[in-house]
Amino acid sequence: MRRAYLSTLLALLITGPALAAPKTDVAKVVNSAAFKAAAATLAAEHDRTVADIITLTEIPAPPFKEAERAKAYRAMFEAHGLRNVEIDPEGNVLGLRKGTRAGPVVVVSAHLDTVFPEGTNVKVRREGTKLYAPGIADDSRSLAVLLAWSRALDAAKIKTRSDILFVGTVGEEGAGDLRGVRYFFGKGAYKDNTKAFYSVDGIDPAHITHIGVGSKRYRVTFKGPGGHSYGAFGIVNPMAAMGKAVADLYAIQPPTDPKVTYSASVVGGGTSVNSIPDKVFVEFDMRSADAAELAKLEAQFKAVIEGAVVAENKARSTRVGAVSAEFTPIGDRPAGATPKDAAIVANTIAAIEAFGGKPTFEASSTDANAPMGRGIPAITIGSGGTGGRAHSIDEWIDVEPTASVRGMTIGLAAILATAGVD
Amino acid sequence: MRRAYLSTLLALLITGPALAAPKTDVAKVVNSAAFKAAAATLAAEHDRTVADIITLTEIPAPPFKEAERAKAYRAMFEAHGLRNVEIDPEGNVLGLRKGTRAGPVVVVSAHLDTVFPEGTNVKVRREGTKLYAPGIADDSRSLAVLLAWSRALDAAKIKTRSDILFVGTVGEEGAGDLRGVRYFFGKGAYKDNTKAFYSVDGIDPAHITHIGVGSKRYRVTFKGPGGHSYGAFGIVNPMAAMGKAVADLYAIQPPTDPKVTYSASVVGGGTSVNSIPDKVFVEFDMRSADAAELAKLEAQFKAVIEGAVVAENKARSTRVGAVSAEFTPIGDRPAGATPKDAAIVANTIAAIEAFGGKPTFEASSTDANAPMGRGIPAITIGSGGTGGRAHSIDEWIDVEPTASVRGMTIGLAAILATAGVD
Repeated sequence: MRRAYLSTLLALLITGPALAAPKTDVAKVVNSAAFKAAAATLAAEHDRTVADIITLTEIPAPPFKEAERAKAYRAMFEAHGLRNVEIDPEGNVLGLRKGTRAGPVVVVSAHLDTVFPEGTNVKVRREGTKLYAPGIADDSRSLAVLLAWSRALDAAKIKTRSDILFVGTVGEEGAGDLRGVRYFFGKGAYKDNTKAFYSVDGIDPAHITHIGVGSKRYRVTFKGPGGHSYGAFGIVNPMAAMGKAVADLYAIQPPTDPKVTYSASVVGGGTSVNSIPDKVFVEFDMRSADAAELAKLEAQFKAVIEGAVVAENKARSTRVGAVSAEFTPIGDRPAGATPKDAAIVANTIAAIEAFGGKPTFEASSTDANAPMGRGIPAITIGSGGTGGRAHSIDEWIDVEPTASVRGMTIGLAAILATAGVD
Repeated sequence: MRRAYLSTLLALLITGPALAAPKTDVAKVVNSAAFKAAAATLAAEHDRTVADIITLTEIPAPPFKEAERAKAYRAMFEAHGLRNVEIDPEGNVLGLRKGTRAGPVVVVSAHLDTVFPEGTNVKVRREGTKLYAPGIADDSRSLAVLLAWSRALDAAKIKTRSDILFVGTVGEEGAGDLRGVRYFFGKGAYKDNTKAFYSVDGIDPAHITHIGVGSKRYRVTFKGPGGHSYGAFGIVNPMAAMGKAVADLYAIQPPTDPKVTYSASVVGGGTSVNSIPDKVFVEFDMRSADAAELAKLEAQFKAVIEGAVVAENKARSTRVGAVSAEFTPIGDRPAGATPKDAAIVANTIAAIEAFGGKPTFEASSTDANAPMGRGIPAITIGSGGTGGRAHSIDEWIDVEPTASVRGMTIGLAAILATAGVD
């Protein structure tokens, strides 16, 4: 999950000034004795939540290898007394907290996977109230917060109208391409039975991501004949085409409003230092909440790659073969949005304001993209506290209790208003 | 060992037409009854030589892991009655055949290591007279030929004037960076006591490699802060610096005479498709037989890398950190040459011609580079027969006896002329 800006285009989605009803719903929730008891539990059990964050962070969950963390999370769901606990065929962990009425569920999810490959050191390092570890902000903290909410609701004996389905999803990041949440809404048992969808992803409790940034991702493989670095010098080198393609892509100045981004992210290939490679690849990521701008960038990107291939085949000899580029799509996330006057957004705005916060509206690419694409009310919220450097090995969160618990309390208030409380 | 061309510049090293004296030396050798007896032994024991080739080929000798093959080779040296047999501290196997006069030794070496990693199937497959296995041509055949020469000299009771030091070297290939022969001439017992150096590496007995192509190799690691591909878009990307560096390097037009080459060969790095990488590396190879031109290219290369880093830090934000490049030398082979009128070359030309061959002059990067760099007469010769596809898993040799024995006979004649025979 990642912060973003709100484009002026998307601001058109805002309708106002209404929001009276949700404010009332949230006010009713936060003023109740039961909610105060739940909030007190969040505070009283904060150390346990921190311990859960550390436990979950230290179970590696590389892309496509979330199984070990999923098993541990399922055991935690079971220990928390959730019902119908299961790991679905895609690998998502599901656990139900029953409500008082029949009807569609409110999903509260966080993602199990990290961006970090196998072998990354995921040991948590603590400095005062700051915890450092890859994946700790994105999204291990949120997994632990779901458990804290479940305990707080039980301790306060809160009965929601709708069932709350807690979910740990797989494949939110990168090449995972939302596979967990895609399965959930494509083939899962609740696919036609979801009232609202909260993705808890990231930190800042004042962020409401109601715009799903679309993305296009490609692995481009540059191929050539290869040969001896000395004996075959002068023939085309796919690495040279790759270098030019990356350099030329980075000369593109995309619009900032709507925000459009690209990244040359992962690279690999080659045989040995004394061989002209026969193959190198690069993985590229392109994003925008604006589908037309994203399509424009994608076309520019393809032209850059193809231009670099043509240039390489002109610059050096093709006597033993030419350079070519092969595009393999590795990600295609739909852009989408949940209107600001949808109850899920209005409730969350009200909850943030109820605790003195000032909501900011974000565009991002998260699990919420999938339900947005199906017209299901969905947003992504932060789990509380502060943190930073997500997707880097210096990733950190601050578990200083006041800010941490305040964020958790805001999220719980919003969810309860959406699920309804008897 | 690898073939290359002879630049016109280097042709200046040729002096002629002389060569009378070496022709006489070689003529004296090849016309002697003792040499004919030695040649007859090479032919008679050819099956044993083939068996030794297979035995040695099937002992894996990956880069830096030649110890098992070295032990077997030491045992073979001992069984052949060589003196002062030892494995030196670097891992080279040494065995002396005493001559009749005091003075510096003539080294006859082959390399123990292959380019193939651990786990490569090195089982020899035979089809008629063709033997297939990784490393069989480069350079296991030569190791066995050294043994055959030792037996032939003993059988013919040939006494050389100079001692002949047979050597199996480690680390000739790739990252080994000539570590065996460097040790031999840097710290070994014979470092100041070597008269001439034959590297027996490869197959064709008409090839005389008297030009040592120098190389400089670097792993360049581009580092940056890394971050989220969307959230942190706009910060510097080490991949962009890498791309520009590769593209700019490939815009350099090096001289063709003397030949100067470069290659961007191996690349890797990155965290995930949705992360700006914090680190990518490229391995570069640069070569020339002309040390001044190689140094010039190396300076251009470094300027290109540094320029790309500066450009990237100007093109994008360094607010969370700047891009840098770290140079790790991974290879540094001295350029060198042995003049064509040096006795070692002239003797070898004469030996090839004495058996009806037509010498070709090669430039390459082999163990002979090290003594050339110290002004010690040194060349690389083939061990006989035919073969091909070195450095590939389809590597092969043909042990059809006529061509195989002819090549061994040529090499022995050249070595004897250089060592002198009473």
